[in-house]
Amino acid sequence: MSLLGIDLGGTKLSSAIFSEDGTLLLKETVALENRRGKEVGLLITDQIGKFLNSDKLSSNEVSSIGISVPGISHTESGTVWAPNIPGWDDYPLSEEVKSVCGSIPVSIDSDRACYMLGELWQGNARGCRNAVFLAVGTGIGAGILVNGEILRGSHDIAGAIGWMALNRPFDDKYISCGCFEYHASGDGVARAARDLLKEDKTYSGELKNKQIEGMSSYDVFSAFENGDYIAQKVIGISIEFWGMAVANLVSLFNPEKVIMGGGVFGPAVKLIPAVKKEAEKWAQPISIKQMEITASGLAGDAGVFGAGYLASKNKR
Amino acid sequence: MSLLGIDLGGTKLSSAIFSEDGTLLLKETVALENRRGKEVGLLITDQIGKFLNSDKLSSNEVSSIGISVPGISHTESGTVWAPNIPGWDDYPLSEEVKSVCGSIPVSIDSDRACYMLGELWQGNARGCRNAVFLAVGTGIGAGILVNGEILRGSHDIAGAIGWMALNRPFDDKYISCGCFEYHASGDGVARAARDLLKEDKTYSGELKNKQIEGMSSYDVFSAFENGDYIAQKVIGISIEFWGMAVANLVSLFNPEKVIMGGGVFGPAVKLIPAVKKEAEKWAQPISIKQMEITASGLAGDAGVFGAGYLASKNKR
Repeated sequence: MSLLGIDLGGTKLSSAIFSEDGTLLLKETVALENRRGKEVGLLITDQIGKFLNSDKLSSNEVSSIGISVPGISHTESGTVWAPNIPGWDDYPLSEEVKSVCGSIPVSIDSDRACYMLGELWQGNARGCRNAVFLAVGTGIGAGILVNGEILRGSHDIAGAIGWMALNRPFDDKYISCGCFEYHASGDGVARAARDLLKEDKTYSGELKNKQIEGMSSYDVFSAFENGDYIAQKVIGISIEFWGMAVANLVSLFNPEKVIMGGGVFGPAVKLIPAVKKEAEKWAQPISIKQMEITASGLAGDAGVFGAGYLASKNKR
Repeated sequence: MSLLGIDLGGTKLSSAIFSEDGTLLLKETVALENRRGKEVGLLITDQIGKFLNSDKLSSNEVSSIGISVPGISHTESGTVWAPNIPGWDDYPLSEEVKSVCGSIPVSIDSDRACYMLGELWQGNARGCRNAVFLAVGTGIGAGILVNGEILRGSHDIAGAIGWMALNRPFDDKYISCGCFEYHASGDGVARAARDLLKEDKTYSGELKNKQIEGMSSYDVFSAFENGDYIAQKVIGISIEFWGMAVANLVSLFNPEKVIMGGGVFGPAVKLIPAVKKEAEKWAQPISIKQMEITASGLAGDAGVFGAGYLASKNKR
């Protein structure tokens, strides 16, 4: 028997077959290519159909399916809110998937929960009971493991750490995405660099040649590596925010590990020692000594591994 | 059968007998009067002995004992760290209490956990599965309920919210107690007023008459009620910090309730609507609409009720 894990992102869909012990046997990724609403649902059910009927699996029938979604999975209604997929305000994904997979059980959870579960199963949180996956990408979210279980809260939206208040006083620019995400997400890093460039008339470094509105956080990390002073200033501020956020997770949750992941960690993975140093200033001093801060062990595959683990916990 | 709840504070010891359904039948409070180390342990075992042998309980034998301690209860070792009780760095309270109460089960937990449990049992969190008790007194801590259980973390020190980073950049004054506690505990409120008075040479209001070093947060709240401008400035900043902290609890935990308690709420209880207004600016916008922010329903008795509830969960 095998497990099917599906990771829906904002731009692509990854599907993978795992053995029950967590070995990745087969993986396929397809681009969403501007699909929206029901077209995305159809892509998922098509992929499931393909994997369930694959010759490659003849001796290895799928016993359970897990799905990671880029937003909120409402456990009671089975619907999904995914802000980056047009038409997925309250999408009936559970119902739709169940219609194509017969008696095979289906579990759905948010990407941040799945990242944490992936690390717990086959990554850098193996053996942990209390840990946090801090996902810093276009946005920021946290998958939080409390006593071996994902923290859900009263309405499945716990872990919305992008909204963490870290910089007083309040500014209207925080209204749409939250203070931490505004300053220290991938978008936030690029925005901070653009803002500094606008102010600095004498700057002639490598970021000047980028189309100002098209700059990405990757451009900033690349300039940082080359010693660019605008990039160094931006990254210095980001490290401060990341360190404060890690400190707050440590003081509140007393975890064994905080795992830094998402698209930004990635290129920012070398900055983890600096993030830890900043966190050490702020956090409960005993608690920070009891934990480790580390990079993701699965990188871009954390979501699909988490979906596989979801499947493994809900076998028929 | 009845339950014995004991609440050790920094200056006094409260003991109470509860019926199994949570009715307070009898309560007694004694001052610690500079007792330290083993003398405090002896006071606790004496009180337990007295209650176990009381004539008043002849038909109402104690079936379980719960104890709330002002610090950290290490569940595995049975020892207690209580920073305000000299000699209680790693005090063997569990062993000592068990030596006087025979086969009656004994449970020990931190005050912040007990405040939360008290509200869950007989206060304003009845029926909740996910809630937070934010205790603002001399220091600041949080008792956090996740899916019906107290959040403990990997080493029993979860909920150390006094260390929450809310005001960048880091300042060395945060080293001893944490940023949030520095600014917005009872001590923090009094300190902020003293600092403003030192700077303001023209001030002639009611706080001037207080011995500057002896001023308490109660003096500041009293001056605030009378419209004193120094007090209004101090309380305005405190509301900002309390609101940011509540927002961060809401975004991370998605709770049904946040309960404001401790000695400061207390006099600050009228400020809860202002704290909520500040929290609404910062928090995850859906999550903040799904929760209620409220005062403690048990005020100074939250700890002893929580100790009673601890007892009720661990009956022989």
